[in-house]
Amino acid sequence: MANWIWYPGDFEIYHGMCQNFDREERGFFWPAYWHIADCRHHVVFHASCRLEKETAFRVTAKGIGHVLVKWEEKAPSWFPEGQPFYLEKKYTIGEWISCPAKEIGIDVVIGNRTGLPCIYVEGEVIRSGKNWTVTDFAAPEVPVGWNDMYVRAQQDPQIFEYTQELCRPVSTERVNGGVLYDFGRELTADTLIKINGEERPDQVTLCYGESRTEALDTQLCYLKQVLEIPGKKDSVPAGCASGPEREADCGASPFGRWESGQRYHTKLRAFRYIFVPEGENASLVTVEALYKYVDFPKRSSFSCSDGLINRIWEVADTTFRLASGIFFLDGVKRDRWIWSGDAYQSYFINQYLFFDKDICKRTILALRGNDPVTEHINTIVDYSMYWIISLENYYNMSGDLDFIRMVYPRMESLLRYCMEQTDGQGFIYGREGDWIYIDWAELDKEGILCAEQQLLARSYEAVASVRRLLGLDAEEFDVRKEALLKNIRQFFWDEEKGAFIDSYQSGRRNVTRHANIFAVLFGYADEAETESILHKVLLNEEVAAITTPYFKFYELEALAKLGRFEVVMDTLKSYWGGMLERGADTFWEEYKPEQPEEEQYGMYGDKYGKSLCHAWGASPIYLLGRYCMGVRPTGTAYETFAVEPQLELFDSFSCSFPVNEGTVWMDWKDGVLDVYTDKDGGVLKAAGKEYTLERGKHIVVKGR
Amino acid sequence: MANWIWYPGDFEIYHGMCQNFDREERGFFWPAYWHIADCRHHVVFHASCRLEKETAFRVTAKGIGHVLVKWEEKAPSWFPEGQPFYLEKKYTIGEWISCPAKEIGIDVVIGNRTGLPCIYVEGEVIRSGKNWTVTDFAAPEVPVGWNDMYVRAQQDPQIFEYTQELCRPVSTERVNGGVLYDFGRELTADTLIKINGEERPDQVTLCYGESRTEALDTQLCYLKQVLEIPGKKDSVPAGCASGPEREADCGASPFGRWESGQRYHTKLRAFRYIFVPEGENASLVTVEALYKYVDFPKRSSFSCSDGLINRIWEVADTTFRLASGIFFLDGVKRDRWIWSGDAYQSYFINQYLFFDKDICKRTILALRGNDPVTEHINTIVDYSMYWIISLENYYNMSGDLDFIRMVYPRMESLLRYCMEQTDGQGFIYGREGDWIYIDWAELDKEGILCAEQQLLARSYEAVASVRRLLGLDAEEFDVRKEALLKNIRQFFWDEEKGAFIDSYQSGRRNVTRHANIFAVLFGYADEAETESILHKVLLNEEVAAITTPYFKFYELEALAKLGRFEVVMDTLKSYWGGMLERGADTFWEEYKPEQPEEEQYGMYGDKYGKSLCHAWGASPIYLLGRYCMGVRPTGTAYETFAVEPQLELFDSFSCSFPVNEGTVWMDWKDGVLDVYTDKDGGVLKAAGKEYTLERGKHIVVKGR
Repeated sequence: MANWIWYPGDFEIYHGMCQNFDREERGFFWPAYWHIADCRHHVVFHASCRLEKETAFRVTAKGIGHVLVKWEEKAPSWFPEGQPFYLEKKYTIGEWISCPAKEIGIDVVIGNRTGLPCIYVEGEVIRSGKNWTVTDFAAPEVPVGWNDMYVRAQQDPQIFEYTQELCRPVSTERVNGGVLYDFGRELTADTLIKINGEERPDQVTLCYGESRTEALDTQLCYLKQVLEIPGKKDSVPAGCASGPEREADCGASPFGRWESGQRYHTKLRAFRYIFVPEGENASLVTVEALYKYVDFPKRSSFSCSDGLINRIWEVADTTFRLASGIFFLDGVKRDRWIWSGDAYQSYFINQYLFFDKDICKRTILALRGNDPVTEHINTIVDYSMYWIISLENYYNMSGDLDFIRMVYPRMESLLRYCMEQTDGQGFIYGREGDWIYIDWAELDKEGILCAEQQLLARSYEAVASVRRLLGLDAEEFDVRKEALLKNIRQFFWDEEKGAFIDSYQSGRRNVTRHANIFAVLFGYADEAETESILHKVLLNEEVAAITTPYFKFYELEALAKLGRFEVVMDTLKSYWGGMLERGADTFWEEYKPEQPEEEQYGMYGDKYGKSLCHAWGASPIYLLGRYCMGVRPTGTAYETFAVEPQLELFDSFSCSFPVNEGTVWMDWKDGVLDVYTDKDGGVLKAAGKEYTLERGKHIVVKGR
Repeated sequence: MANWIWYPGDFEIYHGMCQNFDREERGFFWPAYWHIADCRHHVVFHASCRLEKETAFRVTAKGIGHVLVKWEEKAPSWFPEGQPFYLEKKYTIGEWISCPAKEIGIDVVIGNRTGLPCIYVEGEVIRSGKNWTVTDFAAPEVPVGWNDMYVRAQQDPQIFEYTQELCRPVSTERVNGGVLYDFGRELTADTLIKINGEERPDQVTLCYGESRTEALDTQLCYLKQVLEIPGKKDSVPAGCASGPEREADCGASPFGRWESGQRYHTKLRAFRYIFVPEGENASLVTVEALYKYVDFPKRSSFSCSDGLINRIWEVADTTFRLASGIFFLDGVKRDRWIWSGDAYQSYFINQYLFFDKDICKRTILALRGNDPVTEHINTIVDYSMYWIISLENYYNMSGDLDFIRMVYPRMESLLRYCMEQTDGQGFIYGREGDWIYIDWAELDKEGILCAEQQLLARSYEAVASVRRLLGLDAEEFDVRKEALLKNIRQFFWDEEKGAFIDSYQSGRRNVTRHANIFAVLFGYADEAETESILHKVLLNEEVAAITTPYFKFYELEALAKLGRFEVVMDTLKSYWGGMLERGADTFWEEYKPEQPEEEQYGMYGDKYGKSLCHAWGASPIYLLGRYCMGVRPTGTAYETFAVEPQLELFDSFSCSFPVNEGTVWMDWKDGVLDVYTDKDGGVLKAAGKEYTLERGKHIVVKGR
C-alpha cells in the first residue's frame, strides 16, 4: 500500500485555510480575522532505494512538475577517472518509469499554485510513504507528511472525504405562508434541492435555523440563501461553478441548466430547520440534507441511574461529534473557525469519547501554521499558551514522540515569541493587536492579568517537559517557571481576600474565579491557599458566577480535583440540565439561567448570534469520565492507568472508557462493582482499597 | 477613475509565481527550483473619508469577504457618557452601499485562497486608489499596491492583459512527410488550431522550433505537443479545462467537443516554426499564432552608416521586446523564469529602449518576494547582490523615491542575510545550497571568489546611498565597504600578474576577465591597476575569452569606460555579427564562434537546450546608447544629463534616446552634428567642447 505524501503539516494547513474561510453570515463570507497560514505550493519529494531487480513505478500528482531518476553508470572514456558517473533522466507525471536493478535516487518536483502539492507513487517495489523526504527549497529535507486516509491514486488529498448520509425532514409543517422542514436533529449538511416536476419555481428561499424560532425569522436568521433558478435554456452564470458538485464560492445559485428530478447541492451549513417562505414554490421542490461528518468511533459509553445525567451525556456526545470534523471547531453554525482555546478543551473531551489522535494532530498543526510567528494564535495571547501546553497533554495521552519531535521547533519558537513580551518581573503583557481573552467575563484587565501569568508558567513547564523527552536540556525553562511562580504569588496573592486577584496594577484588587481556578488546576496554590480559594472563591456565591460552559469546564474540574463531586453533579444537572429544559438538543456557547427565553439565542448583539452547538458545551463527558469515573493515565499513553469511580454519586452505572488502544468497563449495581479491562497496567481504587487490574480478568468489589 | 488595489508587491509576487511555474520541456512542467514567494491570500483594505453629502459605493472583488462601514452616531442613553458611539454595519461584496454625510471608515475584508485578493471600489466620491491602506494581519497597515493597468471593474488583476496580434505563417512547406509552418519571426504566442471542414484528424502533433532544424527534429525538439482530438460526441476529459479559452495545466488536449471552423488555443509558447509531421492531418487544420506581447513604446532609435550595426540594433530590439513581458525574462523558449542577474542587465537595456519604469518595479518585486529571506535570489549569491545594486540604479534612472521607500526594508534584510555569511576578512562565501555563479566560465571557484567580494562592496555602497536618500545614517555600510575593499586588494591583487586573481585560497593564482572587469566598472582599481588590467587582461588574448553575451556586456562596458571604443565596435561586429552570420534573427544565450554548426543550438547537454532569444543578448542597445552615443544621466532621473557621441566611430548616424520623460535626437552627417532635445538640463560634449542643451533648440557642431 502506498500513501499520498506532502510537506509535513501542509495537509493540515491547507485544510485549515479552507476551514477558516468557511464562515458565513447573512449572505456574505467572513474569513477569520487573523493571519491564516498557507501551505507550500512548490516542493521536491525524494526517495532512494536499492533495487534487486528491474522495476517500474508511476507518479500521480496534484500539481504540475516532473520526475527525475538518477543512477550510477559505467563512466564513458572522457569522464574524469575515479569519480562516480551518474545518469539522470527526466520523465513526465503519469507515465510508467522503468528502473534498472541498481541503487537509484528519485526526485519528484511538484508545483501547485492554487492548492496542496502532493503525490502518490505506485509500483511493485517503489511506493510513496513515510520513508520519503521532501524539501520546500527553504528548509533542509524533512520526512514527508502523510495519513491513513489517502491511500489510493484516485483520491485527492485536497478534498476531505466525509462520511455522508442522506437525511429527509422528519416533519414538514405549513406555517406563516411557507413550509418549515424539521430534520429532527442538528446536522452539518449540504442542502439538496430537487425540482419535482416540470414546473420551475423562479427562486427558492432557504432560511436556516439551529432553532425553530431562528428558521421562522426570515429577516434575521443567520444563514439564508436565495436560489435563483434559471430556465432550461439559460446558461451558467459567468464566473460561478455549476452543476451537482458544489456551490460556487461566489455565493451564487448552484443551478446551471436545471433538469426535472435532478438534485442540486448547496454548500455545507449547520441547521436543524429549513424554512421556505414561499409556500407555493416549496411545493415544487423536495428539500433534503446530505449530512457530512467524520465517523469517529464510539470508544466510550455511559449510563447511570440518573436519567438527566444520561441525557446530558447523550447531548454532549451529539454536540461534540457535530463540532469535530477535519478539525475541532468552536461551533458548527458560527464561526466554523479553529480556535486554540476551544480546541484545548476538545482534546480533553476527545480522550474520553473518540480517543482519536489524528484529529488532535490535524488541529494542532492547522492552528500553529508556519514559522516565523507573526501574531498570537487567533490573535489571543492565552490561546498561544494553550497551544503550547496541549503538546505535553497530547504526548501524555498518545506517547507519539515522532509527532512531538516534528512539531517541537514550532513549540519553542511560539514560547519565545511570548517571552518577547514579558516585563522585568517576567510577566507577560498584551501588545497592540493582542487580545487578552481568558473568558467572556468581567475580569479587571487593567495592566497585567494574573491568569495569563499562570498560563505562561504552565507553558514553561510544558516546554521543559517536552525538552526532557527529546533529550534536550530544560534548565532555562525550569528556572523561568520558578521565578515566575514566585512573582505571581508576590504580586497577585491577596492575603486579606485569601485569593488571587485579577490585576495588581489597577489597585482594585478584583477577585474573579478564573485565576483561582488555574491555581488549583495547575497546582500553583499550596494547601492553605487552596483551602482558602475553595471557600472564599469557588464556593462563594458573592464571586460572580461563570456564564460560559467554557470556564464551567475548568471550574468543575478544579472542584472535582478538590473532591467536591457533589457540586460537580449539582452543576451538571442545573447548568447543563437547564439548557435541556430550554429545549437544547445540543449544548450552547453560553447559558445564563436568568436570561429571558426571547433573548436566549442572542449573543454579540445579534439576535441569533449564539452558537447552539458549541464544542465547549460537551465537557460533561470529560468530567464524568476523568473525575466521576476516575479513569486516567498514570504513565505515558496509559502504559499505567488508574480507575477510581466515585461510587457514592450513583445508585448504579454502566460505562466503558478508552485506555489508549484498550478499554476499561465498569458496572456498579446493588452495591457491587465489576471492573473489566482488555489492557494491562491498570489499578482500581475503590472502597478504600487498591486492586491491580489484569487483562481479561474481572475484579469484583463489594460495597462503597 | 478608480484603481484595482491589492497588498503592495503582491500583484507582482502573484504573477511572478505564475511566471516561474511556466517552464515547459518535452511535455512536462518545470517550476523553478528555488523557493517561490506566494502572495498573501487574506487581507483587509481600509479607507477613511469625510463625506460632505450622502453618497454610495460598491465593491467588486476577486475573492470572498464583506464590507464594514463605521461612523459615529448620537449615543443611546445606556451608553457611557463622554465616549464616542460608533455604528458599524456589514454589507456584501457587490451591493451598493449608502453612507451618510459624516466621517466614515470603511474596511473591506477579502480572502482568496487560490489567487490574489484585490478589490475595485466605485462611487461618485468613494473610490479605490493609492490613498487606501491594507493589512495582512501580520504587519502594520501600509499603503496599497496598484498600477495604471487595472482601472475598470470588469478587469481581473489576476489576468495580465497582453496586446494580441493574429499571425499567419509566412510560408508553408511540405517536408519530411509533414508540413512546416514558418511564421517569419520568433513569436511568443498561443497556437490556434482550426479544423477546416467536416473531417476530423484523430490527433495533431506540433513540433515547435526557434530554429528550422529544431522544428524538424520531431524526436528531440524542446517543445512538442500531441493534441488528441475527440469525436463530436465525446465529452471533456475529466480534470482538464476545455474550450476556446486556454489549455489546461495538465497538458492535455484543449479540445472538448470540437466544432468545424472553431479555433482552439494551446498555451503560450515561443517559436518561429511549427512542424506537423502528419502531413495528411496537417491538411485538415489551419495553424495560426496569437502573438501576445506587452506593447512597450519605442523610445529610442538608431541607424548609422554601417548596415551591420543597424541590423544588430534591430535584432537586439526584437530580442529584448520578446523577452520583456510582465517581467524581464531570461529567454522565451526556456527558462521563462525571472533571473536576477539577467534582469539586472535588462534594467540597463530598458533605459535605452523602452524607458519603462513599471516593468522594472514588477521585476524587482517579483524577484525579491517577501521577508524573511530564506535563500539567495534564484539560489545564486551574486544574484542577491545584483538585486540590491539594482535599487540604487533604478532610483538614479527614475527618481522614484516612493518605490525605494516601500522596498528598502527588503533591501536591507537581503544585505544582512548576505552579511551573515561573511568571514573574518569580511569576505562572503557560499553555504550549502548556495550557487556561486558569476558566469558560465572556467573560474577558479576553490574558496572565496574575488568577483563576489566586489559585488558585496558594491552592495554596501548601494545600501549606503539609498539610506542617505531616505535620511538614514549610512556609516555602518560605508565603513564595511572601505574595509572590504582594502582586503580585496590585499588578498586578491596579484602584483606579478598585474591583475585580480579568482581565488587566493586555492594557490593557483588563476586570472580570468571577470573580477578585473568588475574592478574597472565599479571603480575599485586605481589608475595604475586599471592600466595593468587593460593590457594584461582585457586586451590579452591569452586570458580565456568570454563566451556568453552576458559577460560580454560587462567586458565591453569596461572597455568603453576606458575609451577603447574601437574594440567595442569590432566585438559588436564580430561577436553579434557572428550570430547573424549563423542565421540568428534574435540573439542567443551563448555563442562560441568556433563551435560547429551542428552543435550550435545545444547547451546543458541538450541538443536544443540553448535559448535562441535571450535578453542578455540585447546589450548592443545599451552599449551603443550609453557609450557610443554617450547619453547618460548626470543627476537623478536625468534632471541633468550628458550627451557625448563618439563621432569618430561612424561616418554618419541618426538616433534618439530617452532622457526620462524627454528625448534627445542626434544627427551626424557630412561632418556636422545636430543635437536637439525637448528637455532642459543636458550638456553636449563633442569636438572637444561642451555645449548647454536647451529645450526646443538645435545645437549644431561642425567637425570631430
